[in-house]
Amino acid sequence: MTDLVVTLQCPDRPGIVHAITGGIVEAAGNIVELQQFTSPDTGQFFLRVQVEGPDVETLQFAIRRAAGPYDAGFEVHDAQRPTRTLVLASKAGHCLNDLLFRRRSGELPIEVVSIMANHDVLRSMAEFYEAPFTHLPVDASTKKAFEDEVRRTVVERDIELVVLARYMQILSPELCSFLAGRAINIHHSFLPGFKGANPYRQAHTRGVKLIGATAHFVTSDLDEGPIIEQNVVRVDHSMDVAKLMRKGQAQESQTLAEAVRLFAEHRVLPDGDRTVIFR
Amino acid sequence: MTDLVVTLQCPDRPGIVHAITGGIVEAAGNIVELQQFTSPDTGQFFLRVQVEGPDVETLQFAIRRAAGPYDAGFEVHDAQRPTRTLVLASKAGHCLNDLLFRRRSGELPIEVVSIMANHDVLRSMAEFYEAPFTHLPVDASTKKAFEDEVRRTVVERDIELVVLARYMQILSPELCSFLAGRAINIHHSFLPGFKGANPYRQAHTRGVKLIGATAHFVTSDLDEGPIIEQNVVRVDHSMDVAKLMRKGQAQESQTLAEAVRLFAEHRVLPDGDRTVIFR
Amino acid sequence: MTDLVVTLQCPDRPGIVHAITGGIVEAAGNIVELQQFTSPDTGQFFLRVQVEGPDVETLQFAIRRAAGPYDAGFEVHDAQRPTRTLVLASKAGHCLNDLLFRRRSGELPIEVVSIMANHDVLRSMAEFYEAPFTHLPVDASTKKAFEDEVRRTVVERDIELVVLARYMQILSPELCSFLAGRAINIHHSFLPGFKGANPYRQAHTRGVKLIGATAHFVTSDLDEGPIIEQNVVRVDHSMDVAKLMRKGQAQESQTLAEAVRLFAEHRVLPDGDRTVIFR
Amino acid sequence: MTDLVVTLQCPDRPGIVHAITGGIVEAAGNIVELQQFTSPDTGQFFLRVQVEGPDVETLQFAIRRAAGPYDAGFEVHDAQRPTRTLVLASKAGHCLNDLLFRRRSGELPIEVVSIMANHDVLRSMAEFYEAPFTHLPVDASTKKAFEDEVRRTVVERDIELVVLARYMQILSPELCSFLAGRAINIHHSFLPGFKGANPYRQAHTRGVKLIGATAHFVTSDLDEGPIIEQNVVRVDHSMDVAKLMRKGQAQESQTLAEAVRLFAEHRVLPDGDRTVIFR
Repeated sequence: MTDLVVTLQCPDRPGIVHAITGGIVEAAGNIVELQQFTSPDTGQFFLRVQVEGPDVETLQFAIRRAAGPYDAGFEVHDAQRPTRTLVLASKAGHCLNDLLFRRRSGELPIEVVSIMANHDVLRSMAEFYEAPFTHLPVDASTKKAFEDEVRRTVVERDIELVVLARYMQILSPELCSFLAGRAINIHHSFLPGFKGANPYRQAHTRGVKLIGATAHFVTSDLDEGPIIEQNVVRVDHSMDVAKLMRKGQAQESQTLAEAVRLFAEHRVLPDGDRTVIFR
Repeated sequence: MTDLVVTLQCPDRPGIVHAITGGIVEAAGNIVELQQFTSPDTGQFFLRVQVEGPDVETLQFAIRRAAGPYDAGFEVHDAQRPTRTLVLASKAGHCLNDLLFRRRSGELPIEVVSIMANHDVLRSMAEFYEAPFTHLPVDASTKKAFEDEVRRTVVERDIELVVLARYMQILSPELCSFLAGRAINIHHSFLPGFKGANPYRQAHTRGVKLIGATAHFVTSDLDEGPIIEQNVVRVDHSMDVAKLMRKGQAQESQTLAEAVRLFAEHRVLPDGDRTVIFR
Repeated sequence: MTDLVVTLQCPDRPGIVHAITGGIVEAAGNIVELQQFTSPDTGQFFLRVQVEGPDVETLQFAIRRAAGPYDAGFEVHDAQRPTRTLVLASKAGHCLNDLLFRRRSGELPIEVVSIMANHDVLRSMAEFYEAPFTHLPVDASTKKAFEDEVRRTVVERDIELVVLARYMQILSPELCSFLAGRAINIHHSFLPGFKGANPYRQAHTRGVKLIGATAHFVTSDLDEGPIIEQNVVRVDHSMDVAKLMRKGQAQESQTLAEAVRLFAEHRVLPDGDRTVIFR
Repeated sequence: MTDLVVTLQCPDRPGIVHAITGGIVEAAGNIVELQQFTSPDTGQFFLRVQVEGPDVETLQFAIRRAAGPYDAGFEVHDAQRPTRTLVLASKAGHCLNDLLFRRRSGELPIEVVSIMANHDVLRSMAEFYEAPFTHLPVDASTKKAFEDEVRRTVVERDIELVVLARYMQILSPELCSFLAGRAINIHHSFLPGFKGANPYRQAHTRGVKLIGATAHFVTSDLDEGPIIEQNVVRVDHSMDVAKLMRKGQAQESQTLAEAVRLFAEHRVLPDGDRTVIFR
């Protein structure tokens, strides 16, 4: 029995749910999960349906016919097929370790096709988890080569998701634009607070009582991309910057992993500068 | 423009969502919100749809026809009509104050038809919020009279929801059974831990690091009814029982208010000993 | 038996805890609670000790002698005496209601000496809780008169704490400076995110997944004063601005009440732009 | 410069803090952190002081003299020396992975002297983290041999802490008693709810809205030992037992790691069936 996920988006009009579910009935599918939302701001309608039964082509055909009159964009995904993922990393291993461990334990439906890092320190971790690892140093003269390699990998290896697991380098506007809607970054603050460098230092200086982590889509506007997931944890005056960093790491790992899970399960639908999340 | 809520329950069968949304289309309704769930344990299908447009009778007629072949139980509610509520209280005022304040501020779509209390101390609070208040002492000899009055009020005043806002008296099995599925209690612990009397004392003795509150449907099996909402808050070794009680009150108020909101918005569907909550 | 609180602050030097506890022994006091902290940033030492036994004058005398060589600023408070409080309010009643309810239930050790509001809508609430209420309209021409009245009340009525319970007016730099270290505001966002007006609208536009509330000392730099307490609550894409506001109110009330409790129990010690909180 | 931790426990009597801090002054120590607590239930006084300056012997000598009249039990620890730890594991790797990763990143001040497991599946993980791993099968006939080996390791290798990282076997009362106060277990529920086997199944059956994890000292009374740390995470009706297990794993890892950190930093002082935690 196959397990499929349909995601669909169109201007809201009466009858759309009925039409789409009609397509599913026609394809002999059984609805396992259905969520829908109409954005009052944009008038846009969003739908996610999980369907048992038909194969991808049959369902695609039926949905195309059903959605025809609604000017809808839609996708049909095989829920059993893991999302092909490229991870960009640097020196800090907590997010990468968490992603790789959760993938191995079956919690994250992703396939880590490749890890690219601008330092070599996480190679043994990648090897332990049997994930291909490439080290490419990044400086002013080699940044373009690194980004070209990212782009080449995405194209040639059919990458669906790029995860910046504390990669720490700013991507060029061109690469951001190329990866729009399929690259997730983890920022180590509760955005929009403490954008940019050293958020834990900023948090310490400001004396906040909670620190946070934010997983968001990468855009060329630094730390301004649509937010997918956020978490916070309580801190107090006795914690210096180093302690905030240690305390924050678990939040970063968990927030990024949750965002990756949501994306890989096709639960994240972009709505302008925001995201619709069907949990 | 009316705003209606349909809740529906039946054995799961393919085509049910399509059929019901067909009824909505036919009644010229527009779906604002739709949630559904099939319980893998019981094979039962649950649906909640929020619909703009038709009046109650038109939608009821259309849903009845659409749902006919599915052996479904359903209800159509007018979302603008507040839920008629009877509150049972005792001496502690924090939950009652919270309910009345949130009702007045428009957060809770309930109408407090009557407050019945076994002590007279909360009368002035009820009067301030312009809610009818009746004091009926409860002891071994008068308990039956109190419960008869509850029952009479429910019947004659069309009460849809009975809220035990720290009422502290155990209801008779007969009254529990009469109120099945429409009475919500707040228990001041994270159930199933610390059932029965003095949960904060029990929590202190056990040395837990979080204390909680649980809103659940009343059943004759004490503190065992289906859970609607739970919350916890962190405590530490330095807090004695009195401090746990003070610290717990905000959780109790908030947990009960949230459960009442969910019920009054028709988001709580009983599924045997558990609840389906469509947030 | 009296219950006293000593708070003390000085440049850190070895022996200070020993010296102060020596003063307490000499005054025949028993230490019930003791917390201390040395700020690595400023080298400043902070101490809070709760002491049973002596009267205020005896302990003050002993601490003065013990602290002499350390160039320390200190205060001795009678823990049984409620903190004399002036509340500034406007139209929204949730924070005021929460403060008044918690004061009545004994949770907040404050005495609400006066409530001043620029609208008259909360008068009945104040009357119900038997708290003096003054309505003084505020516009460009009367703002100075209102602020003069605040200042006069603080001086003549021995006000120790001014609480801005969603007061919504910006205080003049002169009044901020006059109230430095003794005025607490609640801002309806997780600062430093969404400073200024309409934070819930800002939060909606940015698409954050958690909204927050921040209680902070008032300074002339808007929403930049030292933070005392913060909380957040999870939200999702389906919530419009009005829902965010409703959802956020419970956080605002609770965050402000907690900050007021901490202040009234002498647990908040300012450390430059930050606060040391001895819970 | 050394960094020492003193923990001390005795019947409460006036002057004890002054006496101990006098010992520290005498040893030319500087107090970095000091927490104290008197249990109102048992009248027992608890103290933790972090001290810079003297070596272990000098401080021990001074504290012994200062504490002499108070009938106090105390310990002086070198805060730089990692706690010698034996980990017991089985098949599930999430807690072990988390402990080993946090140890490597410097977050957990422990030395993993040995890992003993009743299955061989986690060997490669141990090897990756360069932690000695011993596989000893456990059944009715070999259980005693396994426990003898635990006991031998504890004695001969100077083990200070035994961590049951989802070990899943019940220890004999003799071993529990031998390890009293120095063995930490992680139970995958919010105790006292759902003791014993299959807590996630129990949680699903009961329909709770939050699931939890509890780290506690091991005693012969199953899941009844003094609690060190607890956490919860929100779940809903749509999650089956398998999903609850996946969702709970992050809580288990984090809760156990936090308990181990607190223990290894000498912040956990047993107080009968409860614990005093100096964070």
